Amino acid sequence: MSTAKYVYLFNEGRADMKSLLGGKGANLAEMTNIGLPVPPGFVITTEACRDFYNAGQKFPEGLEEQTLEKVKFLEEITGKKFGDPQNPLLVSVRSGAVISMPGMMDTVLNLGLNDETVEGLAASTGNKRFAYDCYRRFLQMFGDVVLGIDHHRFETILEEKKAEKEVQFDNQLTAGDWQDVIEKYKNIINTETGKPFPQDPMDQLFKAIHAVFNSWNTERAIVYRRVHKIPDDLGTAVNVVTMVFGNMGDDSGTGVAFTRNPSTGEKVLYGEYLTNAQGEDVVAGIRTPQPIAKLEEEMPDVYRQFKETCELLEKHYRDMQDIEFTIERGKLWILQTRNGKRTAQAAIKIAVDMVEEGLITKEEAVTRVEPSQLDQLLHRRIDPSSKLNVLAKGLPASPGSASGKVVFDADLAEKMGKEGEKVLLVRMETTPDDIHGIVESQGVLTSRGGMTSHAAVVARGMGKPCVCGCDEIKIDYAAKQFSVGEQVIKEGDVISIDGSTGQVLLGEVPMIDPELSVEFKKLLEWADEIRDLGVRTNADTPEDAAKAREFGAEGIGLTRTEHMFMAQDRLPIVQEMILASTLEERQEALNKLLPMQQEDFYGILKAMKGLPVCIRLLDPPLHEFLPNAEELAVEITRLKLSGADESEIRAKEELLRKVRSLTEFNPMLGHRGCRLGITYPEIYKMQARAIFQAAAKLVEEGYEVFPEVEIPLVMEVNELSYLKELVIKVADKVMNETGVKFKYAVGTMIELPRAALLADEIAQEAEFFSFGTNDLTQTTFGFSRDDAEGKFMHQYTELKILKENPFVVLDRKGVGKLMKMAVQEGRKVRPDLLVGICGEHGGEPSSVEFCHLIGLDYVSCSPYRVPIARLAAAQAKVNNK
Amino acid sequence: MSTAKYVYLFNEGRADMKSLLGGKGANLAEMTNIGLPVPPGFVITTEACRDFYNAGQKFPEGLEEQTLEKVKFLEEITGKKFGDPQNPLLVSVRSGAVISMPGMMDTVLNLGLNDETVEGLAASTGNKRFAYDCYRRFLQMFGDVVLGIDHHRFETILEEKKAEKEVQFDNQLTAGDWQDVIEKYKNIINTETGKPFPQDPMDQLFKAIHAVFNSWNTERAIVYRRVHKIPDDLGTAVNVVTMVFGNMGDDSGTGVAFTRNPSTGEKVLYGEYLTNAQGEDVVAGIRTPQPIAKLEEEMPDVYRQFKETCELLEKHYRDMQDIEFTIERGKLWILQTRNGKRTAQAAIKIAVDMVEEGLITKEEAVTRVEPSQLDQLLHRRIDPSSKLNVLAKGLPASPGSASGKVVFDADLAEKMGKEGEKVLLVRMETTPDDIHGIVESQGVLTSRGGMTSHAAVVARGMGKPCVCGCDEIKIDYAAKQFSVGEQVIKEGDVISIDGSTGQVLLGEVPMIDPELSVEFKKLLEWADEIRDLGVRTNADTPEDAAKAREFGAEGIGLTRTEHMFMAQDRLPIVQEMILASTLEERQEALNKLLPMQQEDFYGILKAMKGLPVCIRLLDPPLHEFLPNAEELAVEITRLKLSGADESEIRAKEELLRKVRSLTEFNPMLGHRGCRLGITYPEIYKMQARAIFQAAAKLVEEGYEVFPEVEIPLVMEVNELSYLKELVIKVADKVMNETGVKFKYAVGTMIELPRAALLADEIAQEAEFFSFGTNDLTQTTFGFSRDDAEGKFMHQYTELKILKENPFVVLDRKGVGKLMKMAVQEGRKVRPDLLVGICGEHGGEPSSVEFCHLIGLDYVSCSPYRVPIARLAAAQAKVNNK
Repeated sequence: MSTAKYVYLFNEGRADMKSLLGGKGANLAEMTNIGLPVPPGFVITTEACRDFYNAGQKFPEGLEEQTLEKVKFLEEITGKKFGDPQNPLLVSVRSGAVISMPGMMDTVLNLGLNDETVEGLAASTGNKRFAYDCYRRFLQMFGDVVLGIDHHRFETILEEKKAEKEVQFDNQLTAGDWQDVIEKYKNIINTETGKPFPQDPMDQLFKAIHAVFNSWNTERAIVYRRVHKIPDDLGTAVNVVTMVFGNMGDDSGTGVAFTRNPSTGEKVLYGEYLTNAQGEDVVAGIRTPQPIAKLEEEMPDVYRQFKETCELLEKHYRDMQDIEFTIERGKLWILQTRNGKRTAQAAIKIAVDMVEEGLITKEEAVTRVEPSQLDQLLHRRIDPSSKLNVLAKGLPASPGSASGKVVFDADLAEKMGKEGEKVLLVRMETTPDDIHGIVESQGVLTSRGGMTSHAAVVARGMGKPCVCGCDEIKIDYAAKQFSVGEQVIKEGDVISIDGSTGQVLLGEVPMIDPELSVEFKKLLEWADEIRDLGVRTNADTPEDAAKAREFGAEGIGLTRTEHMFMAQDRLPIVQEMILASTLEERQEALNKLLPMQQEDFYGILKAMKGLPVCIRLLDPPLHEFLPNAEELAVEITRLKLSGADESEIRAKEELLRKVRSLTEFNPMLGHRGCRLGITYPEIYKMQARAIFQAAAKLVEEGYEVFPEVEIPLVMEVNELSYLKELVIKVADKVMNETGVKFKYAVGTMIELPRAALLADEIAQEAEFFSFGTNDLTQTTFGFSRDDAEGKFMHQYTELKILKENPFVVLDRKGVGKLMKMAVQEGRKVRPDLLVGICGEHGGEPSSVEFCHLIGLDYVSCSPYRVPIARLAAAQAKVNNK
Repeated sequence: MSTAKYVYLFNEGRADMKSLLGGKGANLAEMTNIGLPVPPGFVITTEACRDFYNAGQKFPEGLEEQTLEKVKFLEEITGKKFGDPQNPLLVSVRSGAVISMPGMMDTVLNLGLNDETVEGLAASTGNKRFAYDCYRRFLQMFGDVVLGIDHHRFETILEEKKAEKEVQFDNQLTAGDWQDVIEKYKNIINTETGKPFPQDPMDQLFKAIHAVFNSWNTERAIVYRRVHKIPDDLGTAVNVVTMVFGNMGDDSGTGVAFTRNPSTGEKVLYGEYLTNAQGEDVVAGIRTPQPIAKLEEEMPDVYRQFKETCELLEKHYRDMQDIEFTIERGKLWILQTRNGKRTAQAAIKIAVDMVEEGLITKEEAVTRVEPSQLDQLLHRRIDPSSKLNVLAKGLPASPGSASGKVVFDADLAEKMGKEGEKVLLVRMETTPDDIHGIVESQGVLTSRGGMTSHAAVVARGMGKPCVCGCDEIKIDYAAKQFSVGEQVIKEGDVISIDGSTGQVLLGEVPMIDPELSVEFKKLLEWADEIRDLGVRTNADTPEDAAKAREFGAEGIGLTRTEHMFMAQDRLPIVQEMILASTLEERQEALNKLLPMQQEDFYGILKAMKGLPVCIRLLDPPLHEFLPNAEELAVEITRLKLSGADESEIRAKEELLRKVRSLTEFNPMLGHRGCRLGITYPEIYKMQARAIFQAAAKLVEEGYEVFPEVEIPLVMEVNELSYLKELVIKVADKVMNETGVKFKYAVGTMIELPRAALLADEIAQEAEFFSFGTNDLTQTTFGFSRDDAEGKFMHQYTELKILKENPFVVLDRKGVGKLMKMAVQEGRKVRPDLLVGICGEHGGEPSSVEFCHLIGLDYVSCSPYRVPIARLAAAQAKVNNK
């Protein structure tokens, strides 16, 4: 059995080998092949990582031999040698997953240094301070990453040394200082591991590879993958690259840059660098770096070369790039390129600009924006006309606004967030260990770090507002407070941040509705040209309908009439109707509701003039409109014991009796939906009359309207035929009474498994189907959303029993199978059957894609998700050609 | 367009034309063709009836012409003529449905009589009294049935006449008396309809046919069809038959007889007759008739001829016959034959005897017994060793015993019965108008009428105990009581009846378990030879298991472990386990439960030694084991207001808090089934250990046991693989600890739509499937049984939105479709997958048939339904060859 090829030289790879070489490795290979200045190196494949785990965290056969071989090759082309005291080969060992997980996995720089080679490095560079700086960095990283020693142990020593020398920054320490530090670091390693620091570079290398493989399964990496829905079985590649040094003095440096502004999308080079530093100094946010523009002044040649490289890479990859570079004694090296993460706003602008620059097609453009990301643009932002109590200003690191209680600790942020509290995480800087707290926070505020610091990158990725590097605020973790000048903000106080301006504001701040940018509108127009799926909205009020229409809704997919029943001025009449003991009494109450319902429907149909409006007849169980039985029982006991009036007690007891008679063991599976229409036809008749009278009035006033009357919770065609006849009779009556003809349709929700299974029979009566995937999910899985999410859903996703919460992402295998059957069977009987979806899935991109795949006519979602659905529908078309 | 052939002469028909000619018509035709003495006549088809309804209750084209033509034919062969004063043709007009509905539809006798022909009849028979008796009968029947006049109007006149003449029976009235009655009857008709009685026989005939068609849709006929599950769209045929007269004097008579005893199955002629009477006198139970044996003494020739005819008919039809006959002046006429209704006991004996007589095959025999009828033999009966307080004795009209509150009125019986009260309907006699009250009663007791009276026939048909003709009891409807000698029984008092002995007993009576008769056992053995489906039982105790085994169960299909949790001595420990705030506390409580559960499983596995036992792990939501939240809240309020001890209040509040945290919106869709096993693996581990320790102990003791561990409420294969691994680990541990090897399997319930939809994936882990059709029905239909049956199921079946209650008869179209898919997909992956059903449908014959059709391995039902399932399984095989 020949072993796999586990190790690739850069010139053996290509950009499209990402799944084998990881993102970083594939791109290093690609850049090497197009002639860019990439330091020589090789990649250990993700397959090696998977085989490592399959073998129980042991190197698979052949990996060590192949690595040795490639190291030989590096030694040949660099002319350096591992462990050579005169001219030592030094390398970096970096993780490189298929899907980028920034900061989540481990990296070791300067590998190859030991007590001998550090002297060689000092000699060959003529820079002792530099050599010792490298060695102490290597010792710390190796100690932390490979040997598992708490990095605070090392940091404390460094802080002590700076205190001793009374200096503020690392670069103020001397070669001698570093030698002291190095001795202490080696002592720590010896004490902690019981063994001296390993001096053999080859031994160092294998240990480092081992550590990088292991870092695939750290807590934080696992959390990150869950949040970003990255499969756990991909594994990471390992990149071994010849070291180049940004810390060789003031003609050296290191930085990262985006080819366009990742926050706004503007076409300018956007980034930061630090002179005399290694890469992790920039990302970690320890020293606040210089903007990239400054490089033009400091090193004009390097800047020009870098700018050209950026242009070349963007054209080559046909997308905005996020590039890491190092300048070693004036020579530019490119260490990484990848498609840059960006805000939704930037994603839109870049996609639209690139179409206009002729770089990509419209089809490509619509796939360049993650629909779920659009949420941040479609939500309310701070009202610019409001008086703001500005506390401080930091860097506008991730756009959007958020308010919440100040929390200084990621664990507490997670806890409070899960309990439903709105919190803002405030930290000096964030690290990958804070990720779980960021997930549950409304936004992040840091006092240190730049636009590419950890907090900024992570928040942008999650679409959460973030203000970074706000050094006006002084955080005191111990006292659980921060101060700005005289003002003290304590844990639990409410502040707001505006990630688009960098403002930090006291208290909660008034928000306004979003407006779509010109580019956003253009992108959505392209999406509209491309997509097959229609997009409607779920709206219960004329205001919602109007807002959705502005966002491009092509009709209403669901108007819930029960929300109208809940209005404060109506509830007493609704209760009267429910508590009626005769049909006459009930009819009287319904007569009072009729003009109100008619007014509701008039408003909505008018707002949607010219477009279809699907109105669902009363759905929830009647006891939802009555007081709670337990509260009533307690009140009666109280009244009795406090000697209250007999008649009052009797009235309450009578009410309780009725509430009890309506109470159900499982309201979700009870007397609701069309079952109400069948047992109380007078209710549905009233609603049908309200719809048709509103329609007749609008037609008379010259509007074109098209109400679709929707019968909910059907599980048998006989229910539908019975109620359809009732609706048609009302329509005929209203036409006769008013002398006005109007168009309408009668159809049904498909929200129970039996309805899907018998779709062929139901389609004989139904003019349209609308999938109610909330209820269909509940009955197909046999769990109610309220109970599942409160009790066990968390464990189900944690244990990976379910990959996704099926109330968020449509379950294609189960619920989707029923939907597919229903569409096919229904259309067999009625080829022009209109089929849509109105469950909450209608605005979720993966679910929208599934709706496209099974041939639905439209999706319907909340007004603010209409643009998301439009884009997702277009992507579904493009991605499934 | 040629019209349909709507009218058939008897010699044009055959027995197998039942669906066109109705049961009665087809058999009259058959008997005519085999040469039996059937009066000449013709049949109007059920198709004519259906077309009559389709045309809006109008005769379809051609019907009248064809009828006229056949009347001509009758006139020719009888030599009599419609309306001929000298020699008038008289006919009966009778309904004749496809499926017999005894007494439910209308009949008119003596049609053709009028003021002139009655004189001709008198002259030609030389019997004025007879002729006037016929005429007055005709006037009353025609008035009641065709003209819709309340029959009490006619009866009052008759009673007045008898009072006036101071006689007790009709046959004591003279020709002159009848003439008076006839005049009064005609006056009633004139007053009530505003028109004189129609004198034209052809007019009479068409009006009577019209009335018979209409009687298909009377209230009582509709109720009867619903109870007996007869489709509403079959329609009835109409039989027009030349009159023969049982009321021509003492050499005439009329009667009905069964070729075997319909109560016991004994092979003796069994019936009753009345001399000088027309047929309705026997059926209506007005005079108590003579036993058929008496006929041998009174008219030996006629008896011999009748006996031979009976034997001939039984051989011809290869089944027990129910025969109506009339003797006209010493000549025997056969008016009807049909397969006789019989008790379950009789059905079994007749079927077994006929096999032994070589009349039918074993396959036929098993189809001759309605499985659902067996219920009456499988239920408890009066303990013969108990001291009985016998009130009175009547005829043993329908076997079985019942106790209940005395009710004298069918409406009240219906009302109380629906409210869950056990009632016994006590009537002088019953009529078809009482049917709704009989349905809701435990049994029926009448003071008048014989073994073939309405009450007896209906009760036998429904399998309800009945005692008839108990003339010792004197009923006083007005006082709402009956008396036996000095003893007075009031409405609401409890009595019992034994329909097998005719005893009426005071109070409730101790009952004992049933035993199977020799014939029953033989029939079930034949069923076992024939059937493919296995039959298991649902049993939670060793006693139930043993009983079921006695009844032929081949294993246990469902042992519910929660019933064991509910036992009084365990509930406190179970609550301790639930309320535990740490894993340690919970484990402690579980440790106490372990030996108890082990004892349970030991008993059941031992009772079922050698057979498989499927044990379901804990299924219900935990709050089912805790007190009710509302009651607790009320109690806390009471304690507070009455100044109770603070610590007591706090303890209750703490309990309430926990109860609330476990309370669910929809417990059916909540935290239950395997979801408990996943969130509290320690519970399932304890249960698995209890099972395996019991198994190990039994194996050591030399028993062969085969536990099947069943994971409930699975909707995703990952749930199953997670819990299966847990169970296997426990099994391995127990084998290691005990050193005993035992066999076991791990499988799952298929009780959620998603489990059925993903059966292929689930079968990769499951060694068996068991359909939990109770839950599967609830989730597929989206209604809970408790809520549906309490709130709207009644209306759903009333309005025919559902043909059957799907919790009783398995819904083949919806639930069945999912089951079929699951079986197919599951067996694709695992061809030897064991598949059964353990929902309540497992003992319902139509559902058992469906299980046979989709290839299940076994059905499982309650112990008392095991024989029903065995028979139903055999029938499914025979009927679907």
